[in-house]
Amino acid sequence: MASSLSPPEVPMELHVKNREKLLKSLIQHLTTSSRPLQGFVFLQGGEEQTRHCTDHTELFRQESYFAYLFGVREPGFYGALDIASGESILFAPRLPDEYAVWLGEIKPLSYFKERCMISAVHYTDEITKVLHQRYRGSGKPLLYLLHGLNTDSNNYSKPADFEGIDKFKMDLNTLHPILTECRVIKSDLELNLIQFANDISSEAHVEVMRNTKVGMKEYQLESLFLHHTYMYGGCRHCSYTCICATGDNSAVLHYGHAAAPNDKTLQNGDMALLDMGAEYHFYGSDITCSFPVNGTFTRDQSLIYNAVLRAHNAVISSMRPGVGWVNMHKLAEKTILESLYEGGILCGDIDAMIHERLGAVFMSHGLGHFLGIDTHDPGGYLQGAERPKEPGLKALRTARELLEGMVITVEPGCYFIDALLVPAMENPKTSKYFNLQEINKFRGFGGVRIESDVYVTSSGCVNMTKCPREIQDIEAVMAGAPWPIPKTTISSANGEI
Amino acid sequence: MASSLSPPEVPMELHVKNREKLLKSLIQHLTTSSRPLQGFVFLQGGEEQTRHCTDHTELFRQESYFAYLFGVREPGFYGALDIASGESILFAPRLPDEYAVWLGEIKPLSYFKERCMISAVHYTDEITKVLHQRYRGSGKPLLYLLHGLNTDSNNYSKPADFEGIDKFKMDLNTLHPILTECRVIKSDLELNLIQFANDISSEAHVEVMRNTKVGMKEYQLESLFLHHTYMYGGCRHCSYTCICATGDNSAVLHYGHAAAPNDKTLQNGDMALLDMGAEYHFYGSDITCSFPVNGTFTRDQSLIYNAVLRAHNAVISSMRPGVGWVNMHKLAEKTILESLYEGGILCGDIDAMIHERLGAVFMSHGLGHFLGIDTHDPGGYLQGAERPKEPGLKALRTARELLEGMVITVEPGCYFIDALLVPAMENPKTSKYFNLQEINKFRGFGGVRIESDVYVTSSGCVNMTKCPREIQDIEAVMAGAPWPIPKTTISSANGEI
Repeated sequence: MASSLSPPEVPMELHVKNREKLLKSLIQHLTTSSRPLQGFVFLQGGEEQTRHCTDHTELFRQESYFAYLFGVREPGFYGALDIASGESILFAPRLPDEYAVWLGEIKPLSYFKERCMISAVHYTDEITKVLHQRYRGSGKPLLYLLHGLNTDSNNYSKPADFEGIDKFKMDLNTLHPILTECRVIKSDLELNLIQFANDISSEAHVEVMRNTKVGMKEYQLESLFLHHTYMYGGCRHCSYTCICATGDNSAVLHYGHAAAPNDKTLQNGDMALLDMGAEYHFYGSDITCSFPVNGTFTRDQSLIYNAVLRAHNAVISSMRPGVGWVNMHKLAEKTILESLYEGGILCGDIDAMIHERLGAVFMSHGLGHFLGIDTHDPGGYLQGAERPKEPGLKALRTARELLEGMVITVEPGCYFIDALLVPAMENPKTSKYFNLQEINKFRGFGGVRIESDVYVTSSGCVNMTKCPREIQDIEAVMAGAPWPIPKTTISSANGEI
Repeated sequence: MASSLSPPEVPMELHVKNREKLLKSLIQHLTTSSRPLQGFVFLQGGEEQTRHCTDHTELFRQESYFAYLFGVREPGFYGALDIASGESILFAPRLPDEYAVWLGEIKPLSYFKERCMISAVHYTDEITKVLHQRYRGSGKPLLYLLHGLNTDSNNYSKPADFEGIDKFKMDLNTLHPILTECRVIKSDLELNLIQFANDISSEAHVEVMRNTKVGMKEYQLESLFLHHTYMYGGCRHCSYTCICATGDNSAVLHYGHAAAPNDKTLQNGDMALLDMGAEYHFYGSDITCSFPVNGTFTRDQSLIYNAVLRAHNAVISSMRPGVGWVNMHKLAEKTILESLYEGGILCGDIDAMIHERLGAVFMSHGLGHFLGIDTHDPGGYLQGAERPKEPGLKALRTARELLEGMVITVEPGCYFIDALLVPAMENPKTSKYFNLQEINKFRGFGGVRIESDVYVTSSGCVNMTKCPREIQDIEAVMAGAPWPIPKTTISSANGEI
């Protein structure tokens, strides 16, 4: 086991540019609404958490909006942007002397100033003093705080709080939509990190495929993935808990959590659905590969796999700025239904099936979501935008039109989930579409998902994920072929003749 | 890389016995204080947490007291023990239909009844009804809730809360000390799990030693450890964040967290101090190995290493029921000071050094702590017990006398920490003990810690940790020798002559 990759240097200019982008956007907004160009963007970073009443400290990962603007990996910070001057200010926790004995060097403020390329760094107990000194307006200084809805969790971000906040005016409405929209469109420096997370995760997926054997436990595939991305990619965090589902578990969309902990034994004839992605300097990846655990696709497995692959490829071929994501979801659905029809599982008129939302029986999740510092990156629904209400479409994490610079996952799937299938087979409106003899073969099959991370360019899109996708490539890699399969293989073989 | 181990079956009788032990102890207490043998022990399990405002779910690990009594790995449960009947009752969350699509099979209540060997299982929305039906006393039923101080974190455990709790009487004082003391003394079934966590972690430490090379990153050692314990031991969680400290980082006692993330490159001549332990079915291990990253001890490294090893061995040789832990700490300190004296680093009268607390300059942490479901297992200080106040001793997580069945870490260390060393060298009371020429060689050396997990038997103790400890063994293993080094090597070699 080795790698052609190594962790790249992280250019902290990335966060400088993120801050510049926010300030530009905010100033434009304030100017348009004739508001003074004064006050501070003010965010609170995350705090370390302990487990229940114990002193067991969970490994800290920075809050995502704070990470976006400041790139600070340590807990207990605050950060401000001075709208009038454009300067950035960090506030670091004042650490007690014994920190040096137990937790390490107490870094001077200058360390953070330099590393994070910040205009000024002070201690958190100086927030009120520093911001009052800097404020050039009259009355209490104005803080633009982060408060808004995360449309994936339905939770609200918690606005910054500190002792002395009563000495400030607060604006809770302006910042969140503007900062969120900055995060939706990725810069080249951000794309580079997402690309590295994709590169090391793609390589790790291949490593897992090569080492998958009947009789292993699902969690051993997880362990191989985690090890490859940390050992060779320096990725200490994953974007999300690994989903290592085999057999009927592959129909459980978010398998792998504590109550379903990747603990099944791989059986001959099972499909594996592995949804795993590493994170590098806050930026993530989100990749799913599906393959037979014994290395050879059966006819039935090929049918479902190719249905999903056709949908995956059809969507990527159609993506460009201006394209609506709901239409991409429908394209994926239709492509899958067509394949199931051609494979003899469904019968009847495909347009009528679509009208009856039969696509949602086989793919009940959305086609894809924004990806960045969060796996489900925010901004999927602009303020006031309505979610679709129909089955399948209502699960979409965004219904927007594509814009250049968006990074979005393309993850069609086809699952045989009794809880959805049985009602559809019993419903008089939809029962006629099922070829009972054929569909019953697939009860317990589980499911297939193929997921790539794609960024939208000015004229199309680029797939950042580099896993084997064609059946012949997967079978070759699982049989020991190198990846990528050298393009020269055939010509050099010819050369020998 | 392979293993001679595989994850053992977990006997759920373990938790039955834990519950029986608590009830016996509680009933004894109530009887002694002439209180009625009625009411319920009532605990709330942990809840899944999301990261800030996002839908990123952290991998759930059960709250430790709840895990001890019920062994449930899933979030959202409550549990009760009926003091009158001795029966156990679990309350499971009522999951929505879409759980089956997204998160997996909705397990019937009978699954938990059988798996966790529980008398009865109901839903969490039935707590009030079920407990009222069961209660045979008059008035509101009495709940014994968990509320008490964790003496390591100084946090209080959060008593159970649910809708309808106002229909009960509450006792917040009785349960915590009794349940905590149950956890202090381990049963054979508990010891078996701690032994497995030790076995797989010891093997992983050896695997890491064998693969350590100059030029690697510290986190690669962490990755090797995590992979070995998960791949071959099924250990998804560690007892704590891995401390992979090399060079001067090895003097940072709790290195490895987000602000000091194991990211240094291993340099020729550096010592490594690796403090890593896996957890299996809630029960943990806590093991430290120290060794030179290039595989060969220098004279200076041998001097410090052997000072610590002598302390480690002296303590383990002296441990048995009735021995005071403060005295064991002092024994370790004295042994280390004697070695530093013999090595020419210190000079003068050793008893006088001890009186001046010079031991705490080199070992500022406590000698060891209870280990179990928490890494710093509770019960170190009985209610009302006072902590020692002297340097070094005040860091002890317990000052109790040893009892049969306790599991405690033995982890002497010797560190060269400028923040402690410089003041001692400048203090007129202690400056005379330092041989300046010699001690200055060790500035920047870092430190050495050797940590084993030990359980107390009726007449002595057993070391559960199985890592190479003697210098010659470490050097042999790092050079490729098998571990354990076969005892027959010498005799069979003789046989060939």
